[in-house]
Amino acid sequence: MIRSLITLLSVLLVSTSAGQQDPLPSWNDTETKRSIVAFVDSVTRSSSPNYVKPEKRIATFDNDGCLWAEKPVYFQLLFAMDRIRELAQEHPEWEDEEPFKSVIEGDMQGVMASGEEGLLKLVGASHGGVTADEFSEAVSNWFDTARHPETGLAYTDMVYQPMLELLAYLRANGFKTFIVSGGGIDMIRVFSEDVYGIPPEQVVGSSLEATYEMRDGEPVIVKQPGIDFIDDKAGKPVGIHRHIGRRPIFAAGNSDGDHQMLQWTAAGDGPSFCLLVHHTDEQREWAYDRDSHVGKLDKALDEANERGWTVVDMRNDWASVFRDR
Amino acid sequence: MIRSLITLLSVLLVSTSAGQQDPLPSWNDTETKRSIVAFVDSVTRSSSPNYVKPEKRIATFDNDGCLWAEKPVYFQLLFAMDRIRELAQEHPEWEDEEPFKSVIEGDMQGVMASGEEGLLKLVGASHGGVTADEFSEAVSNWFDTARHPETGLAYTDMVYQPMLELLAYLRANGFKTFIVSGGGIDMIRVFSEDVYGIPPEQVVGSSLEATYEMRDGEPVIVKQPGIDFIDDKAGKPVGIHRHIGRRPIFAAGNSDGDHQMLQWTAAGDGPSFCLLVHHTDEQREWAYDRDSHVGKLDKALDEANERGWTVVDMRNDWASVFRDR
Repeated sequence: MIRSLITLLSVLLVSTSAGQQDPLPSWNDTETKRSIVAFVDSVTRSSSPNYVKPEKRIATFDNDGCLWAEKPVYFQLLFAMDRIRELAQEHPEWEDEEPFKSVIEGDMQGVMASGEEGLLKLVGASHGGVTADEFSEAVSNWFDTARHPETGLAYTDMVYQPMLELLAYLRANGFKTFIVSGGGIDMIRVFSEDVYGIPPEQVVGSSLEATYEMRDGEPVIVKQPGIDFIDDKAGKPVGIHRHIGRRPIFAAGNSDGDHQMLQWTAAGDGPSFCLLVHHTDEQREWAYDRDSHVGKLDKALDEANERGWTVVDMRNDWASVFRDR
Repeated sequence: MIRSLITLLSVLLVSTSAGQQDPLPSWNDTETKRSIVAFVDSVTRSSSPNYVKPEKRIATFDNDGCLWAEKPVYFQLLFAMDRIRELAQEHPEWEDEEPFKSVIEGDMQGVMASGEEGLLKLVGASHGGVTADEFSEAVSNWFDTARHPETGLAYTDMVYQPMLELLAYLRANGFKTFIVSGGGIDMIRVFSEDVYGIPPEQVVGSSLEATYEMRDGEPVIVKQPGIDFIDDKAGKPVGIHRHIGRRPIFAAGNSDGDHQMLQWTAAGDGPSFCLLVHHTDEQREWAYDRDSHVGKLDKALDEANERGWTVVDMRNDWASVFRDR
């Protein structure tokens, strides 16, 4: 009797508040928003033929260019360069060695010219050779002080308000939200819980080799310079399989690096929703797609158009871009 | 006002039901049980100096010998051998090749004599070369039909009732429960949700290499024969770091394979609880420790005694062993 009363009151409270609030206020009332809401309704309403049990409501989100900005280059690269400059005092040999020389001189073109091999060296030297705790602290300090070269904003303020609302909306509807990023897992975990509401155990990303060691009688996890896993392109479904072990029913990305994740999601047995964020807003953010050196969106855009995946037109679909502060 | 009423009624209901039910009925009223309850109380009571926020209540459990039995050998090896025999028709060359020859002839000693290299061949041939979906189906079929050679029980009925209660008790107290096993992640995921209440995304284990491929226009994850990661011994803290990204405050194991996981847990900044299941019951299960070829418990037992970790004496601490049916 008491339990029934509680149930009744809870239902009243929930339906009242649901009727009052738009869960996606930063999304304009366009077809994009309506398609998201219609999908969520169709998989959560118990009478729906597309109903999906809560434990299977897995949603995966790319990070760079999907949850936060990625121009002029991936923020992780900016962190790596700042960190190399910080560590350069202990490495006088870097003055004559690429890509370190270019990093120290602030020559982005030189850094890019060092190619994939150069970038791997940079990642190894800036992310490896420290304990996991030391690395987290370095990232955390960087976020506290570094500012974006064009907007002057803290990097964690360059996350997209509409996507924050989308994450919260999905969670309120029983979804478990994951990040599945080509970026480094240990870097994203430093801010994902505070900023996105996504706990470390729901972050999938690229990683370095790691070892367990005793130092002065205390165990530590040491990040090694070698790459363990690249969670990008065909690596994304593999990373999803490895970490989540269940196919998403909702996946969001913005580039060809997300193409296979969206394919994998769309090929599931039940209902699915694939979203691509298309950067079309050079006023409030940046406009780029097929020819961009970061966040190149080409083949995935073609497939989205062919298969009717939802493409966010940032300029028209979003009422605001960066997160409210 | 309505909200306050609900809160009040909820508190009444919860405290009433808590007073009525023992959450660990298969645990005898010994020091072991009392130490578990005291720890959980100390980290969940908001007025406690050891209070831990819910998002940091990470609990990790070994599987073989901790959540289910592991004698006469790891159940995964029994699956592998059954599967090799099933696949042998397509591999006439196995008749003259170890360890396959011994497997086909049912010669366990011969299998063991093939050493680590032989076991890796066995794992590669029995677990690799199929899609992840095909593998899950093979495991699922095996669980439906295979029976333990000594007890005649289904393998999923050889899980420990007291540990099921412990998992549920921790979850009811805001813990997130994970499996961290040396066994194969894709095998455990087939039954972990149904049997342990642990979803696939909370299973950490050893894995094979995997690739993403298109077959007849459909994307698949293919399990390759090569080993990707061994989640055992020093690999366990690494696997925890990689998958969970947060240090456990509660860890349970039963062998030296869990030693580093327990060390890592105990070395955290805040309160922690380390549990070792000691197999002391040759009547209801098996009795073994320092000299066993599976589940060898030697160094971890010494450290448990030195550091006051809780050691379950299966014979005296558990009122029942295998799960209620």
